[in-house]
Amino acid sequence: MSTTGGAGSTALVTGASYGIGADIARALAARGHDLVLVARSAGPLGRLAAALETEYGITARPLTADLSTEAGLEAAAGAGLGLSFERTAWEEERRMLALNVVAPSRLVHAALPGMLGRGRGRILNVSSVAATAPVWLGTSYGASKAYALALTESLARTRRVRRSPVALTALVLGHTVSEFHERAGIPPSPPSLTLGSPYVAERAVRAILRRRPPVVCVPSVRYRVLAGLLGHLPHRIAALPPLADDFTVTSYGAPQPSYGTGEPPAGGPESAGGDGQDGVLPAEAHGQRERQP
Amino acid sequence: MSTTGGAGSTALVTGASYGIGADIARALAARGHDLVLVARSAGPLGRLAAALETEYGITARPLTADLSTEAGLEAAAGAGLGLSFERTAWEEERRMLALNVVAPSRLVHAALPGMLGRGRGRILNVSSVAATAPVWLGTSYGASKAYALALTESLARTRRVRRSPVALTALVLGHTVSEFHERAGIPPSPPSLTLGSPYVAERAVRAILRRRPPVVCVPSVRYRVLAGLLGHLPHRIAALPPLADDFTVTSYGAPQPSYGTGEPPAGGPESAGGDGQDGVLPAEAHGQRERQP
Repeated sequence: MSTTGGAGSTALVTGASYGIGADIARALAARGHDLVLVARSAGPLGRLAAALETEYGITARPLTADLSTEAGLEAAAGAGLGLSFERTAWEEERRMLALNVVAPSRLVHAALPGMLGRGRGRILNVSSVAATAPVWLGTSYGASKAYALALTESLARTRRVRRSPVALTALVLGHTVSEFHERAGIPPSPPSLTLGSPYVAERAVRAILRRRPPVVCVPSVRYRVLAGLLGHLPHRIAALPPLADDFTVTSYGAPQPSYGTGEPPAGGPESAGGDGQDGVLPAEAHGQRERQP
Repeated sequence: MSTTGGAGSTALVTGASYGIGADIARALAARGHDLVLVARSAGPLGRLAAALETEYGITARPLTADLSTEAGLEAAAGAGLGLSFERTAWEEERRMLALNVVAPSRLVHAALPGMLGRGRGRILNVSSVAATAPVWLGTSYGASKAYALALTESLARTRRVRRSPVALTALVLGHTVSEFHERAGIPPSPPSLTLGSPYVAERAVRAILRRRPPVVCVPSVRYRVLAGLLGHLPHRIAALPPLADDFTVTSYGAPQPSYGTGEPPAGGPESAGGDGQDGVLPAEAHGQRERQP
């Protein structure tokens, strides 16, 4: 991707097989960008790559990798745990931290120096409204998203980056689709706070293709207001049940942790197709999470 | 440690051989708590344990562990990288994330259910003012401290924890001592913002021994004001050079990364004896970082 968003350059999109990742890949393809699409599963990834090549006349190369392992750390997807810290196995927590904290850091660390050297490039890290206040109580999910937001801000606001044409943006997501909640037995998110994944992807791609992308991108006015409120409300109020999910006491049928069996539990407030993302697009643009093999 | 801070119970203190870790161990020993002291190096740890046993008549058991490895993940220390993301080797970043993000998560995950079951216990996670605003630009250090703060808040504010006698506290540190800065060639912190490590340790221990410990503990009024300001100032102002360290452009002699050679570069705004901590004290109270073997 050229600095000013021209077509012809290549974007690496992680977690590209489903949901927001796939929608971001599509939004970039529609603008003429070649793609490297990363996810764990070859099937959906290959089908998406073929479809985008046919539809938009770009080149899309699928790349399978499990980013929760050292070996797979050539690109980043993301994960969400909608379960209380007390109910999870450490292996699930470790995997989430590997995907949401370590993998994006690795990718940015690998990509940023080259981008600064070339004087072009965009990085989009996927954060969440869960990072802005204790609205995702009892889990480590919000904390992992606070890390993504803080890392992006720390790097984006340095003089070197601000004075270069390179930019980093944190995408602050809200509820994006609700399939996950239903599958997991979690009450669906309020329709007024649920955004369509293609809409969110379009807003994110538009934001990073600006000449001066924002450091923080919160798609939709509703979430901008909510994120602002949550960041400033006294914690006592922000932690009230209607505003906060408290996973240690909810009575819904707790989803069975399924990490390690090859099927991520997914989760995170963005849910199916959009939950728990943590995409980073070092190659020069960016994308997202992996949902299901 | 009993719920209300009575003597006789056992506290696990990580990074206990130097600085704030050692001072927290001392403050707990002075109150009659038995100790398990964790650090990488046997020498200083053994000497401290022996000294505290003699001085306070408690039992202090030294435990050597490197928490940046899976095997060492039975306790947590912390690390700080005062270097720009562009200048570090990935192995240094990986090690910092292992110490500041993964290890404390592992310890809390292991300790919290048992504490809730027994109805007693305290956990102190070490965060930093670097977590409250982009004041530590160009590094992943502040982001790792934002994670520690957010994880503590997410767990501490659940109904289950609030209704139990168990408590989690995030210790938000500022510059604590300046030896590190001198050694690394970084200009010393302003004296008005430098706190003594024994003072900070005493405040932290006092806070967690209350019947209702605070979720966030910021020792000293100066830092409470600063943390409040940094959290609310527009980022444009917070990122101004006098307020923000910008490690991508500073002209000080950059410290040589020394991770991996057995000698941590240390760093983080708290500096020598207090920098980069991320202590967690599952056993029931808590402590801190490891400075040097």
